[in-house]
Amino acid sequence: MKKKKNQLRDILKNSQKGMGLEYDINLANHYYLTNEVANIHKKPTPIQVVDITHKTSKPLITKAFFQKPSTTDYNGIYKGKYLDFEAKETKSQAFPLKNIHKHQYEHLQSVVQHGGLAFIIIRFTTYNKTFLLTFEKLWYFLETSSRKSIPLSFFEEKAIIIKDNFHPRLDYIKAIDFAFKEKLYEKFEKCEN
Amino acid sequence: MKKKKNQLRDILKNSQKGMGLEYDINLANHYYLTNEVANIHKKPTPIQVVDITHKTSKPLITKAFFQKPSTTDYNGIYKGKYLDFEAKETKSQAFPLKNIHKHQYEHLQSVVQHGGLAFIIIRFTTYNKTFLLTFEKLWYFLETSSRKSIPLSFFEEKAIIIKDNFHPRLDYIKAIDFAFKEKLYEKFEKCEN
Repeated sequence: MKKKKNQLRDILKNSQKGMGLEYDINLANHYYLTNEVANIHKKPTPIQVVDITHKTSKPLITKAFFQKPSTTDYNGIYKGKYLDFEAKETKSQAFPLKNIHKHQYEHLQSVVQHGGLAFIIIRFTTYNKTFLLTFEKLWYFLETSSRKSIPLSFFEEKAIIIKDNFHPRLDYIKAIDFAFKEKLYEKFEKCEN
Repeated sequence: MKKKKNQLRDILKNSQKGMGLEYDINLANHYYLTNEVANIHKKPTPIQVVDITHKTSKPLITKAFFQKPSTTDYNGIYKGKYLDFEAKETKSQAFPLKNIHKHQYEHLQSVVQHGGLAFIIIRFTTYNKTFLLTFEKLWYFLETSSRKSIPLSFFEEKAIIIKDNFHPRLDYIKAIDFAFKEKLYEKFEKCEN
């Protein structure tokens, strides 16, 4: 029990201050893990270590830089399926596409090609609305629109809204269930045909 | 093409110096990614950032510590399946169990419970032998033995040896195919019955 409390403390400590969405996702992941619903984690931020001193009791990094992540922030397993996603907040009325790097789009596309579930979770903070948009629908937007941001209306129409919940606060697994209903059960469906 | 070269350069730069196994796995992962065989990545090393200065052109970390990883080093997707593993080298004749943390064993067990493929890759450097041991067989050892290390003979008997290859040098996907033959094709097998 103490260990789980410590885990939770670390999770909360590691959530970037003021980033409510990240905090909510980390809380949900902790809930899913301890209740054996899913095993999903945020990857550590990649850091390029330049200088270390060993004069202290444990190695102390004295010079380092943040690196651009080569993949997305979150991945894990749910109902036997690999899932992978990026989560972002925006204050605007439209989500700027440049907030996700090109190689992150490529990574999500690759996940889909290998049979995984790929999506983005976007929170419109001004409107207090959080959506799960499957990569397939994101791709459709990228292919058919020349806009540099995805308007809220596109999310309202094509994405799954993640409603406020009691515990966990952001129960995004429900949106996964809804968005990927067929893919999560394709094994059984295929057998039945 | 330039981008792929840069990716490869980063991968090699990020491999810990002198850690031959990590280097080989990163090379293999790069090969699998570019040849669309699988999408498997090493997670960044978790670092607790204490102080940052913004006086430089990009944020410079001036004080930070290495943290214990809460999960394993590698995960990804192959043939639609979630896979997760830890990789270690040993100079000894037996692999010391303490080289993998308790919460890493728990993480691998959780992956199996959620339907993923979990394993460890161990290289016995003195004997130049690298093995893939499924978590299920590792668990059997932990449950039936009171030893604090797994002898090479157990790996010889229960694990899959990863033979030297030309390109990639450590073609560990072949060992996954062999070790998890049934699980990788269970969808089709179930349908046939």
